[in-house]
Amino acid sequence: MPRTAFEVDLKKTPEQQTVKTHNRWHPDIPMVENFKPGDTFRVECYDWTGGQIGNNDSANDIRDVDLTKVHYLSGPFGVEGAEPGDLLVVDILDIGPLPGSEWGFNGIFARDNGGGFLTEHFPEARKSCWDLNGIYTTSRHIPGVRYPGIVHPGLIGCLPSRELMEEANRREAELFATDPDRVPPLLAPPYAETALMGQMTGGAAEAAAKEAWRTVPPREHGGNCDIKNLSRGSKVYFPVYVKGGGLSMGDIHWSQGDGEITFCGAIEMAGYIDIGVDVIKGGMAKYGVINPIFRPSPVEPHFSDYLIFEGISVDEHTGEQYYLDAHVAYRRACLNAVEYLKKFGYTGEQAYMILGTAPVEGRISGIVDIPNVCATLAIPTEVFDFDIHPNADGPTRHVSGADVAKTS
Amino acid sequence: MPRTAFEVDLKKTPEQQTVKTHNRWHPDIPMVENFKPGDTFRVECYDWTGGQIGNNDSANDIRDVDLTKVHYLSGPFGVEGAEPGDLLVVDILDIGPLPGSEWGFNGIFARDNGGGFLTEHFPEARKSCWDLNGIYTTSRHIPGVRYPGIVHPGLIGCLPSRELMEEANRREAELFATDPDRVPPLLAPPYAETALMGQMTGGAAEAAAKEAWRTVPPREHGGNCDIKNLSRGSKVYFPVYVKGGGLSMGDIHWSQGDGEITFCGAIEMAGYIDIGVDVIKGGMAKYGVINPIFRPSPVEPHFSDYLIFEGISVDEHTGEQYYLDAHVAYRRACLNAVEYLKKFGYTGEQAYMILGTAPVEGRISGIVDIPNVCATLAIPTEVFDFDIHPNADGPTRHVSGADVAKTS
Amino acid sequence: MPRTAFEVDLKKTPEQQTVKTHNRWHPDIPMVENFKPGDTFRVECYDWTGGQIGNNDSANDIRDVDLTKVHYLSGPFGVEGAEPGDLLVVDILDIGPLPGSEWGFNGIFARDNGGGFLTEHFPEARKSCWDLNGIYTTSRHIPGVRYPGIVHPGLIGCLPSRELMEEANRREAELFATDPDRVPPLLAPPYAETALMGQMTGGAAEAAAKEAWRTVPPREHGGNCDIKNLSRGSKVYFPVYVKGGGLSMGDIHWSQGDGEITFCGAIEMAGYIDIGVDVIKGGMAKYGVINPIFRPSPVEPHFSDYLIFEGISVDEHTGEQYYLDAHVAYRRACLNAVEYLKKFGYTGEQAYMILGTAPVEGRISGIVDIPNVCATLAIPTEVFDFDIHPNADGPTRHVSGADVAKTS
Amino acid sequence: MPRTAFEVDLKKTPEQQTVKTHNRWHPDIPMVENFKPGDTFRVECYDWTGGQIGNNDSANDIRDVDLTKVHYLSGPFGVEGAEPGDLLVVDILDIGPLPGSEWGFNGIFARDNGGGFLTEHFPEARKSCWDLNGIYTTSRHIPGVRYPGIVHPGLIGCLPSRELMEEANRREAELFATDPDRVPPLLAPPYAETALMGQMTGGAAEAAAKEAWRTVPPREHGGNCDIKNLSRGSKVYFPVYVKGGGLSMGDIHWSQGDGEITFCGAIEMAGYIDIGVDVIKGGMAKYGVINPIFRPSPVEPHFSDYLIFEGISVDEHTGEQYYLDAHVAYRRACLNAVEYLKKFGYTGEQAYMILGTAPVEGRISGIVDIPNVCATLAIPTEVFDFDIHPNADGPTRHVSGADVAKTS
Repeated sequence: MPRTAFEVDLKKTPEQQTVKTHNRWHPDIPMVENFKPGDTFRVECYDWTGGQIGNNDSANDIRDVDLTKVHYLSGPFGVEGAEPGDLLVVDILDIGPLPGSEWGFNGIFARDNGGGFLTEHFPEARKSCWDLNGIYTTSRHIPGVRYPGIVHPGLIGCLPSRELMEEANRREAELFATDPDRVPPLLAPPYAETALMGQMTGGAAEAAAKEAWRTVPPREHGGNCDIKNLSRGSKVYFPVYVKGGGLSMGDIHWSQGDGEITFCGAIEMAGYIDIGVDVIKGGMAKYGVINPIFRPSPVEPHFSDYLIFEGISVDEHTGEQYYLDAHVAYRRACLNAVEYLKKFGYTGEQAYMILGTAPVEGRISGIVDIPNVCATLAIPTEVFDFDIHPNADGPTRHVSGADVAKTS
Repeated sequence: MPRTAFEVDLKKTPEQQTVKTHNRWHPDIPMVENFKPGDTFRVECYDWTGGQIGNNDSANDIRDVDLTKVHYLSGPFGVEGAEPGDLLVVDILDIGPLPGSEWGFNGIFARDNGGGFLTEHFPEARKSCWDLNGIYTTSRHIPGVRYPGIVHPGLIGCLPSRELMEEANRREAELFATDPDRVPPLLAPPYAETALMGQMTGGAAEAAAKEAWRTVPPREHGGNCDIKNLSRGSKVYFPVYVKGGGLSMGDIHWSQGDGEITFCGAIEMAGYIDIGVDVIKGGMAKYGVINPIFRPSPVEPHFSDYLIFEGISVDEHTGEQYYLDAHVAYRRACLNAVEYLKKFGYTGEQAYMILGTAPVEGRISGIVDIPNVCATLAIPTEVFDFDIHPNADGPTRHVSGADVAKTS
Repeated sequence: MPRTAFEVDLKKTPEQQTVKTHNRWHPDIPMVENFKPGDTFRVECYDWTGGQIGNNDSANDIRDVDLTKVHYLSGPFGVEGAEPGDLLVVDILDIGPLPGSEWGFNGIFARDNGGGFLTEHFPEARKSCWDLNGIYTTSRHIPGVRYPGIVHPGLIGCLPSRELMEEANRREAELFATDPDRVPPLLAPPYAETALMGQMTGGAAEAAAKEAWRTVPPREHGGNCDIKNLSRGSKVYFPVYVKGGGLSMGDIHWSQGDGEITFCGAIEMAGYIDIGVDVIKGGMAKYGVINPIFRPSPVEPHFSDYLIFEGISVDEHTGEQYYLDAHVAYRRACLNAVEYLKKFGYTGEQAYMILGTAPVEGRISGIVDIPNVCATLAIPTEVFDFDIHPNADGPTRHVSGADVAKTS
Repeated sequence: MPRTAFEVDLKKTPEQQTVKTHNRWHPDIPMVENFKPGDTFRVECYDWTGGQIGNNDSANDIRDVDLTKVHYLSGPFGVEGAEPGDLLVVDILDIGPLPGSEWGFNGIFARDNGGGFLTEHFPEARKSCWDLNGIYTTSRHIPGVRYPGIVHPGLIGCLPSRELMEEANRREAELFATDPDRVPPLLAPPYAETALMGQMTGGAAEAAAKEAWRTVPPREHGGNCDIKNLSRGSKVYFPVYVKGGGLSMGDIHWSQGDGEITFCGAIEMAGYIDIGVDVIKGGMAKYGVINPIFRPSPVEPHFSDYLIFEGISVDEHTGEQYYLDAHVAYRRACLNAVEYLKKFGYTGEQAYMILGTAPVEGRISGIVDIPNVCATLAIPTEVFDFDIHPNADGPTRHVSGADVAKTS
């Protein structure tokens, strides 16, 4: 077990920690510690909400979550010799829950506080809690499924440079200005009030917080990519923008489907990540790298049988034809899968959460056949306790009784 | 070998065949033959262009292709007992090239005649030809790669009902009207002049051709889905809209990457498809099915190591931020992969065509992290003759000499 | 489709063919044709018995088969530049049935004419016939199972040198002499009477036939390895012992489980093999190669769920303890699987034949834990139409009615 | 994290523990604790030697190991309702090293103290030590390889009944009597002196120790099966012979190749196992189960490219022909792989240990082709830092410098 370079105490709030997390990205956040190429170390992380969500049967905490505070990140860590233009090679050696905290949650955010991929269909806050048993998870809120984990950091990346920060601030401000009052919003603009700037304090922190990136979207540095395949055993090559790199991470997911569609979309948990670091000098130019690239893990969960749903880019309510819109096509594929699963007794919310938490594959199958994209959603059939294949007799309602947690 | 229910003679043009193909979708196209549930039969198909493209070193034919004539489909076939509301269960038992025609082509269509996913980057017509050797393919135009086939019909589905036909015509006309002069066009509206209506003739055929669907997009019935995973050994459940079902197919691909990004995007070929049919009575309502669903094949090519590229929804030219636009994000992932492969000596066109023809996986990894989608493109590293992993020494230019076919 | 270098006409007996097959191995058998490194060609092959077995419902032909005549091999083929000490690189590009002959058979040989792995338990001749439908096979004699093919030559290799031939003759004669009257015999010694020596004729052929190897066992050159993973898409490196190599092949299997346990143990068929050849000069010494080595195919059937049976090296009848005997342990694992499958309604013979024909994996799991070997047999659960997992309710008898073909 | 039902303190010897392990199998060993069906619990285990081997650079401890003391097992655990004839359903939910003890060892036992599969070739004691880094392991003694773990209990099973114990004692005594002075011995007969009988004490323990099974071989109850696929996430069905079942386990392996060929053949370590239990009443008769059966894990390490070596049953020294001897054939396949790997610079001992520790697949490919078995050994090529495929240039010596630990 490598030495723990960043500890979190789940009995304290993020604000009470001795070594503070950061919930914004800024080039001047100081390194927590510097490592040599070849070093390995352990990083403990809060769940992305910093403990706002409880293991209980009410979705009130999902409804009321303060999204200006997320995501709580552990780091940044420096690597000796890493300079702008290099690639930081990161081995994600292991990830798991913190001892005594072997559970996770999945939330459907309310339309007026976060929303999600199918928010027009599921506008109310809902929650499911998941018990972690070795490599498997089950939920008292969603019977009939058991998944092996594909544990990964939803959020990992290096500190941006000032130039990159300002460029993204510019483009995001322009988009935001097109509809500043939209609910859900088009994006999360800088917001200083609830900013945690790591080991940066005082006036410098206050000034930086006003321009620092929010952590919600993925950007050139990686960040909140929510790629389920960055799992234990994968190797990632991150662009370096500041001296030392400044690697930070958090938002650990026990399992997630492609798209992370419920927004609070994976099985979210606090946990640890074991990291190995190395550097490829000048790697960005050598390999033409702008965004991170990576190799997946040899121990990803592995299935051979799937049931696959198609969707095309026609709006489900209005029948409007969209032009090569993969977003609409994937939404239709997801809605098709929800309807299918409901035939076995699941509520819509349960089915939606299964798609968010199970290791489903979301593919852009055809993207040139004007005007329709064909998106596909593949569900591994082995995660169900019962047979979900179509047959001549029609589906049997295997599921009843339990439902996801609601608000009161 | 099942009995051949539809023959094509590659020495003749589609217009010269005795039993005509059809290149439009219409509910009244007569069945070529009717089968019983449980039957199997062989269907021969033209390549999607009906033989317009040659196995040579000039892309002039790609530049000059007549896109009003595509796709040439074999069928429709009826199944006894199939009625609207049923699911037609289709086993794709085998697919392969026609004897003596073991080759295929991939084309980058010119921006002003078809275009493609990266048409702003690659606006000129280009072509590569591929030799098929058992399960593998290689190209004299793109050295250094060898793929196993993931052979599939790009286009397969049942005849639409009149209601479905009219509804799609409505929504497509509305979109088309928003920019009727766009190049490339927003979509392909009905066009009677070059229509082939199968066994329908005379005035009925002429009238039907004016309202019949063009074959370009996928729609509710399946159609031109271009899903590489509908490969030999898969099982598909199609919605039935007319009595007998009316299953037609064509546009056979030897291999294709997710998205079929060069538009003429797969390794296109003429070939045969062996089909088994069955019916699930009332299956659309029983399982809530709107679009086809399917199970993949146990003999899909199978890889464990990938190099994966990320893309986000920011325009590569203008730096404009798009809102949750998976199309832009996947384009960026593809462009990132093209730049990477160029470091090994490939031209941009070669790299683009590799992404179109190799069994790459295109995923919607994160689609809720406003405002960016994170799309990923996974390339199986084993398809290259050389090591494409990043390392400290940087890439070696392994590829030189050959290039894709150009216009004259 | 590569040019056919060796044709067989299934309407004729092997003895009636113009270009004769050979059913013995000898260094002096003349090459049928010589190829250059890089060439590809098609080879047609008889089924291993040369057409002695029919697609019918009687096992009389299995009972009465003349085993002195097997296996009928197509070749040998020379490769320019190949010399003793080289490695012949063989790409198995494709394999399939001959048009119009899409069926295969599996036989349990009678104890007194061939026997098999479980011959003490199943001493009578039995047969099952299998229909080939694209990538899948089913049998009227064994309901409830459908396999994808893992098509491969049971027998492939280069001609032995005189030295190698004589050395194997020596060691086999010594073993044979220890129990020359055993039934089944310990091995098949040279036997000139029914020898076919390819293009070798007259006195030379007669003389050679007296010392030529029978084709039954695998030896250093490869030969009758019956490795199911030498399937379409694999690449094999064969030791070269004579100038030109002299590659021959036959005994095509549509599918087989590890061990080929019923002896006539796969789904046996006539068919074609497409071959590519190359040479590694001095490869035997460079890589220390004595027996062939190979890389498997990326399109092997691929499953994620298995039910796995264990066996140890204790005799099932006498309770005798054997010392690290993997043969006994694997037999026990197979017998355990047979008993299990019988609980679902299969007869013992049906279960035995499933193990012989389905792509089961047979592993030497532990071979040092004195005195017991632990062998394991893994059955892919997806090949059954019904659920074979254990559960609290116990097995349901899904199978009834049909049985394998018997003798009359 | 489930409650720990069995603790081991690595600072103490097994003899010093408060709750004792047992190193013999006997029906009367008392349960440590009883659980209900559906319960989960954690079990800590010694490495199989109980701490006799150190993380250092001398193989003296391997040479001098006391094999009468192994294996130290944690348990037995009872399950309410389990009775003879039932199946105990065991979910192996998780396995890992104990915190602070993230290392393992592999040993070649001396020919005169244990031996191993290739003991005639490697008669001297040797050792390699392995560092565990998340899912991967590397060794300072064997450069150039890095494996993902396939962590599993080498030894797990239920207590035997008196009848089963006596029957195995009978058959083993008979075999032992055939050559009682053999080195290495034919098997390990009962030996009371160093027996640990768990919570059994006094005269009862002394009496039982004289008849109790040694733990070396696998038997009907499971035991020391050394099946690498019983890894985290697998589900095993054990025969129950005594009331409560009496499940015990130990001998944790971080990784192992099929056969565990170096005898101390895996990467051996102390660790924990998380277990879930359930019961199928009357399952032995319902399913015809004699030996355990199991389902493998969805998170086993997963590779697509292998280099595969063949072996036949001819003795490598004498040239003697064996009759269908899978043991000899697998030995030849292993020796072929050793010779191959030596061409890249490995010593024979390093190559031997790679085969013992990497997740290689050992298959019985053909077992009916008299007189030769064809065994195959498949090495996943991705575990090497360099390319091990054959090519025209021949192998490069990538490995030099380090070697395995020797005796002094």
